Amino acid sequence: MKFQPPRGTRDLAPEEMIRREYIFNVIKDVFERYGFDPLETPAFESWELLSRKGGGGDAIKDEIYYFKDKSERELGLRFDLTVPLARFVANNPQLPKPFKRYQIGRVWRYDRPQAGRFREFWQADIDIVGSSKMDCEVECLATVCEILEKLGFKNFFIRVNNRKILNGLVKYMKIKEERTAEIFRALDKIEKIGKEKVKKELGKIIPQNKVAELMNIIETSGKIESIESKLKRFANTSKELKQGLLELKEIVEKSKMYGINNKIKIDLSLVRGLDYYTGSIFEISVKTKKSVGSISGGGRYDKLIGLYGGQPLPAVGISLGVDRIYEIMLSENMFDTPLTKTQIFVVCVNDSVRKNCVEVAQKLREFGINTQIDLMGRDIKKQLAYVNSKKIPYALIVGPKEIKERTYTLRNMKTGREERVKLENIKTKIRF
Amino acid sequence: MKFQPPRGTRDLAPEEMIRREYIFNVIKDVFERYGFDPLETPAFESWELLSRKGGGGDAIKDEIYYFKDKSERELGLRFDLTVPLARFVANNPQLPKPFKRYQIGRVWRYDRPQAGRFREFWQADIDIVGSSKMDCEVECLATVCEILEKLGFKNFFIRVNNRKILNGLVKYMKIKEERTAEIFRALDKIEKIGKEKVKKELGKIIPQNKVAELMNIIETSGKIESIESKLKRFANTSKELKQGLLELKEIVEKSKMYGINNKIKIDLSLVRGLDYYTGSIFEISVKTKKSVGSISGGGRYDKLIGLYGGQPLPAVGISLGVDRIYEIMLSENMFDTPLTKTQIFVVCVNDSVRKNCVEVAQKLREFGINTQIDLMGRDIKKQLAYVNSKKIPYALIVGPKEIKERTYTLRNMKTGREERVKLENIKTKIRF
Repeated sequence: MKFQPPRGTRDLAPEEMIRREYIFNVIKDVFERYGFDPLETPAFESWELLSRKGGGGDAIKDEIYYFKDKSERELGLRFDLTVPLARFVANNPQLPKPFKRYQIGRVWRYDRPQAGRFREFWQADIDIVGSSKMDCEVECLATVCEILEKLGFKNFFIRVNNRKILNGLVKYMKIKEERTAEIFRALDKIEKIGKEKVKKELGKIIPQNKVAELMNIIETSGKIESIESKLKRFANTSKELKQGLLELKEIVEKSKMYGINNKIKIDLSLVRGLDYYTGSIFEISVKTKKSVGSISGGGRYDKLIGLYGGQPLPAVGISLGVDRIYEIMLSENMFDTPLTKTQIFVVCVNDSVRKNCVEVAQKLREFGINTQIDLMGRDIKKQLAYVNSKKIPYALIVGPKEIKERTYTLRNMKTGREERVKLENIKTKIRF
Repeated sequence: MKFQPPRGTRDLAPEEMIRREYIFNVIKDVFERYGFDPLETPAFESWELLSRKGGGGDAIKDEIYYFKDKSERELGLRFDLTVPLARFVANNPQLPKPFKRYQIGRVWRYDRPQAGRFREFWQADIDIVGSSKMDCEVECLATVCEILEKLGFKNFFIRVNNRKILNGLVKYMKIKEERTAEIFRALDKIEKIGKEKVKKELGKIIPQNKVAELMNIIETSGKIESIESKLKRFANTSKELKQGLLELKEIVEKSKMYGINNKIKIDLSLVRGLDYYTGSIFEISVKTKKSVGSISGGGRYDKLIGLYGGQPLPAVGISLGVDRIYEIMLSENMFDTPLTKTQIFVVCVNDSVRKNCVEVAQKLREFGINTQIDLMGRDIKKQLAYVNSKKIPYALIVGPKEIKERTYTLRNMKTGREERVKLENIKTKIRF
């Protein structure tokens, strides 16, 4: 009987992990370069926290892994890294502000598994807590842009919108405020299920003529000037919408300082599914030969920390979907990582030199070279077959003659070329 | 209302995470240097796998977080990294052998939380699958020794034993084989609850005179020679015990090649709690001024992969308890890490130079320096107060005059010393 990983989860084999570690390292480096510090929180949180209205919201309840511990405490696996951050900040009022943190880790959602979509997946988040300035939005976006560029992405763009504009529109249309979250969740599905189905869903919440009007307005995207002229008539009546528009303009303006303004596209149909957003929202998509896919998203959530019992504090953040980034990079051949971290295999010619092989290996390791030796008692041929099958780039052949002369045969496994080397020069002879 | 992390879990604030990242990086580097590649597996596994007899065993059942997903699948959070590895290898017979992998991640056990003991904790494991040679044991031990030395530990030692010896003794004493696991679990508690209580527990399983005999034999530790002479009389009747003794001797012998033989102490009372061990077992402890604590343990489990439906394959591994290592390093003042990853804060003198400050910050980031700028619209004094409270080592003051002269004031926040620098020279002026 064999055991599979539970449905919606998977193992990440070494070749895949090496590629993922490369992504994680780029992400971490850039996060730290922009002044974010690491934070870690538990894999599970109290159910009450996760399911609280205005946080995860009703919609998230169906998507959480729920369980009780042996003392009947109600718990759930975290579904994002924002809710735990908000809880942490609420519990630690002494933190200097702005609090800039990053967190990279897995989250779990009980979605229907499909190609490239898992129930266990990885997010890499940055958040800035304590400032309501749009400078924060722009820093978050600039950080993510730099990561994507470092990873080799060229064709990506940032869709930006503001919940205040959407709220203003809903109010203008005299729709009851308590339906807002439902409307946003329906609108959020445009890309997933298409416009027509969304219209149908909206028709169950608001009258048909309002559906048409709403859809007509939000089908606006492009430069800030055209958005502004389209929204002018609402801005006069809704202070909230006006404020949202100002914030949008400020983001566009400030993004010029970071040279990312050409990436930004205002898109009034962008909604984001989670309940906690209060202002700016954004989503970053990558265009490839095959498709356009969202790989990052976030926004401002100025009420969440107060909701969790903290002093009310403004906050904004953005999340990178590591699994989607990985899938795109793989299908676009963007990786240049090795299949194993091992750089050299010390081949033991016969049992008389086993001890010497260990000495040589320990020397190489001292030099900082990732080294393996034979642990199976195999003959040379089988050792070299292993080196080949593992795609280890170099083999260093050690026999009695080599030991005596203190000069070893280094074989480049890719080219088959061999040369005689002394250990102290080996670092100049190998290239990965 | 405030929300705490669930009982037995905790948040890891940035200062702590920076220290932990340091530990993780040392561990990872050395793991890779010894030829181990990364693997990742899901946080939860099927309940059937986790609770299988001979794997986690009966004892582990009470300690697992158990839950069902929305389709009533029975699942549990992983309690170690060995069981998932064994499952992975069983499912992937094509892997070249030896399969050397490392995995660093959290595991969960529903223990009673106490000082320094959590229900969510981190392990860093290496395992070698496919070889029954004692070379593997020694490589695992050498890897861990190098990590501990790199982290700054001086006073540590390795206790080694072999389950075959213990099995042999149990059989010699004509104790029923099915009580073996129970006996081992009782013996495993010597350090935790003391010898007398263990004797009492054993008394419930086997007759009192056998308890005394067993305790008398296993209270033997020291050099291999004295162990050998003590066990000679059993070795003649038990092939299994004899084999265990040979393996022990081989480990001592081969550890000389790695220069770690002086760390090794044979200890027949070492048992290890988990059911899956079949041969060598080891535990590494650190002596500090205050106490002696186990920080690493492992052993050989030659039957586990076959038990999970794979081809039977020998395997051995060792696990580092990252949380214990962290606690000891903290209490022994062994960390020299900064409190924040940010290295420079660009102080904005007034609003007229905000744009320039972003340019300066982006330049510093390009140089690879971790940089923050003001995101709150604060005055100089408040900006410097933030720099101080965050313990950022340098401030770079940018005002209209500085912009004009392209020369900025760099303040060392620790010494208070200031100097005028050009951006292109700044990397030579800062030291962390």
